[in-house]
Amino acid sequence: MSLPRIVIIGGGFAGVTAARGLRHAEAEVTLLDRTNHHLFQPLLYQVATAVLSPSDISSPIRWLLRKQKNTTVLMAKVDRIDIDARRVIADEGRVQVEYDFLVIAAGARHAYFGHDEWETYAPGLKSLEDARSIRDRFLNAFEEAEKAVDAETQAGWLHFVIVGGGPTGVELAGILPDIAHHSMLDDFRNFDPRSTRITLLEGGPRLLTAFDAHLAARARRDLESLGVNVRTNAIVTRVEPHAVYVGDERIPTRTVLWAAGNQASPLARWLGAPLDSQGRVEVLPDLSVPGHPEVFVAGDLAAAFEENGTPVPAVAPAANQMGKRAARNIMRVLGDLPTQKFKYRDKGNLATIGRYRAIAKIGRFELTGQIAWWFWLLIHLMYLATFRNRLSVLIEWAYSYMTYQRGSRILTEREGDGVSGSGEKADPVERRARMPSSR
Amino acid sequence: MSLPRIVIIGGGFAGVTAARGLRHAEAEVTLLDRTNHHLFQPLLYQVATAVLSPSDISSPIRWLLRKQKNTTVLMAKVDRIDIDARRVIADEGRVQVEYDFLVIAAGARHAYFGHDEWETYAPGLKSLEDARSIRDRFLNAFEEAEKAVDAETQAGWLHFVIVGGGPTGVELAGILPDIAHHSMLDDFRNFDPRSTRITLLEGGPRLLTAFDAHLAARARRDLESLGVNVRTNAIVTRVEPHAVYVGDERIPTRTVLWAAGNQASPLARWLGAPLDSQGRVEVLPDLSVPGHPEVFVAGDLAAAFEENGTPVPAVAPAANQMGKRAARNIMRVLGDLPTQKFKYRDKGNLATIGRYRAIAKIGRFELTGQIAWWFWLLIHLMYLATFRNRLSVLIEWAYSYMTYQRGSRILTEREGDGVSGSGEKADPVERRARMPSSR
Repeated sequence: MSLPRIVIIGGGFAGVTAARGLRHAEAEVTLLDRTNHHLFQPLLYQVATAVLSPSDISSPIRWLLRKQKNTTVLMAKVDRIDIDARRVIADEGRVQVEYDFLVIAAGARHAYFGHDEWETYAPGLKSLEDARSIRDRFLNAFEEAEKAVDAETQAGWLHFVIVGGGPTGVELAGILPDIAHHSMLDDFRNFDPRSTRITLLEGGPRLLTAFDAHLAARARRDLESLGVNVRTNAIVTRVEPHAVYVGDERIPTRTVLWAAGNQASPLARWLGAPLDSQGRVEVLPDLSVPGHPEVFVAGDLAAAFEENGTPVPAVAPAANQMGKRAARNIMRVLGDLPTQKFKYRDKGNLATIGRYRAIAKIGRFELTGQIAWWFWLLIHLMYLATFRNRLSVLIEWAYSYMTYQRGSRILTEREGDGVSGSGEKADPVERRARMPSSR
Repeated sequence: MSLPRIVIIGGGFAGVTAARGLRHAEAEVTLLDRTNHHLFQPLLYQVATAVLSPSDISSPIRWLLRKQKNTTVLMAKVDRIDIDARRVIADEGRVQVEYDFLVIAAGARHAYFGHDEWETYAPGLKSLEDARSIRDRFLNAFEEAEKAVDAETQAGWLHFVIVGGGPTGVELAGILPDIAHHSMLDDFRNFDPRSTRITLLEGGPRLLTAFDAHLAARARRDLESLGVNVRTNAIVTRVEPHAVYVGDERIPTRTVLWAAGNQASPLARWLGAPLDSQGRVEVLPDLSVPGHPEVFVAGDLAAAFEENGTPVPAVAPAANQMGKRAARNIMRVLGDLPTQKFKYRDKGNLATIGRYRAIAKIGRFELTGQIAWWFWLLIHLMYLATFRNRLSVLIEWAYSYMTYQRGSRILTEREGDGVSGSGEKADPVERRARMPSSR
């Protein structure tokens, strides 16, 4: 008798946790991911701002699951799911995997509200490659500012605009002044890095909607005290190479970072199940897909609800809990037991604002300021414990926070071009070298 | 009275040392490099094999020179030199810098002996981007082997061929068995990583011509004891996606790494000076260009000779010494003193072979085996001392050597494709998932 075949799509929190939950399953488990690595997404903004190296927050998926002999990891890009034939098709048909049970944990990408063409000028932050791209753009902006021939161009390079006032936007906006105002002070001759400006644009009436209003207000004050220009009710209407528009107002900038909106993986379409406005699968309470008890959805791709009707947030602990529940339900079906409902256990909510400041809400407790930041640090190091990377991250952080130096300020070269990251080329301008006047 | 303007092209060993040598100059110094980082090239092969992260062996050039207020660093790609107008033109004309003195330290790239089309299939190892590309190819080969549908394809993915028996080729060949036979043992289900084969092809009669014959023979024995198939007098005649040819013999492999041949930077052509067969500038004994006492060449771009007529080797200490000499000669001219000849001080020669083995020749002393390896480690950590990266590298090394795990096994994603590194796509083949048989 052949063993049941369980396929997992996605090597993020939900997918890896599901695989781990199946480690004792009498089954053939296959996990597919388009990359070779599991990513600790909550620290991605630190790679994007050159504090950490990509390898500090990622581990090969097959390394994480190496002891689990019932599990095969394949690096393959899933193209579609044939839900009737119970088959997953990847790598343009080169890889085809049949399943008896399927867990889809393919996550989400950022969304541009119907303006996908903005992505060229305003990259989002979901994958390691996104983080590298943002880091390159960010470092390149300072290099271009050093070479700029006129004040207006230079000011454009030294103005960073972040769109989206959720945790990612707030974390990016909070860390940039730190770098501009401290890390690079001695490095340039043609401008003062302290002249760098940071603007955070949020379309809604306030930041951090996952937090209570007074905590979000505290975060806003913290950001403003760092010099960030925070604007709420500021809906972006257009993004260009040299500017972003709020309504009809033109805001000159050469670097726009996108931290707004989520769009679920397009793989959801193959399930024939109802999707919500973000493209997420409206799963049954046991996380299975309506009409397909053999297919489960976990993580950011699932539109799940708590018993009281509030939506489960798209955060790492929720993804972990869903992955575990999906695995357990498959184990239960294999053991001829009925599946169980997913119950979300809220472990609290955390967001950092630059160096040494954070806001936290854990159950009834609230923390702000430096104590919240230390709590945030502790929690994140604990989570990273499953990685071998913890020590390395701790050293990078210690170095970065003690010395105000960035650990990973290396610009990726692109083929045949030393300058990378800027989506377009500036106009060719005849120019003499500008020499340092300070001596 | 305006200050003399000194321009340095290149931020490698020679360029950065030249800049440092000019730190007390009453002059306006500008250093141009196409990247933002100085690279510790002797450890590049460890990035290529996923032991170290790119940021472990590189530092921003402007950070290295931040205290030197007379020096401006510009990230710009030099296109040409107008030697009569004493002007350097970069970034397609957007950056133009005039000079009174010029130091060219633009280095060399690998050469394909007139077959530049081979680069697609056989990447070389000079820049950080090269190292990333080789690392991606190397890691991707194992991912493809796990997905391979037939034994022949799988064997092709598990055969690594390295072309060139110099230090880079020997170091790459020595470290690969280590990874294949130790680091990845538990990670795959569809093949045994110990079945990985490594072939080193050298066109000449022996490896490591910079060493005495008996030391090179020892290195060869060390490599062979690690399972590397070493072939000398093996001239590559053709490189294809799925094979490399030695004469008419076809050697099936999907991964060819190129460590043969040097070609000096094409910038040398703008000097109107005689070039040697590798395109290097035949400099005068004081490192200046014939007919242009205001232009100096340092590092791998200079064809310099010792007093006894032996060519100065293209190694990091020679580049450092030339950079220092070029800077001193400019200081002497500024002080109305005659320039001095460059004298190469041979600090010895080192090459590692895998874990714990090396060969070394320092003056009259020779070392082999483990003691040579520890010596190699010490020297390299001392050199890295100028970087802040030393501690981080030490930790990565300690981790890697103690646990046999790679520190940086993260595959770069390419846009819109989870699979990267392979220069071509395999034929689409209908395939069923191969499940683990071991349980």
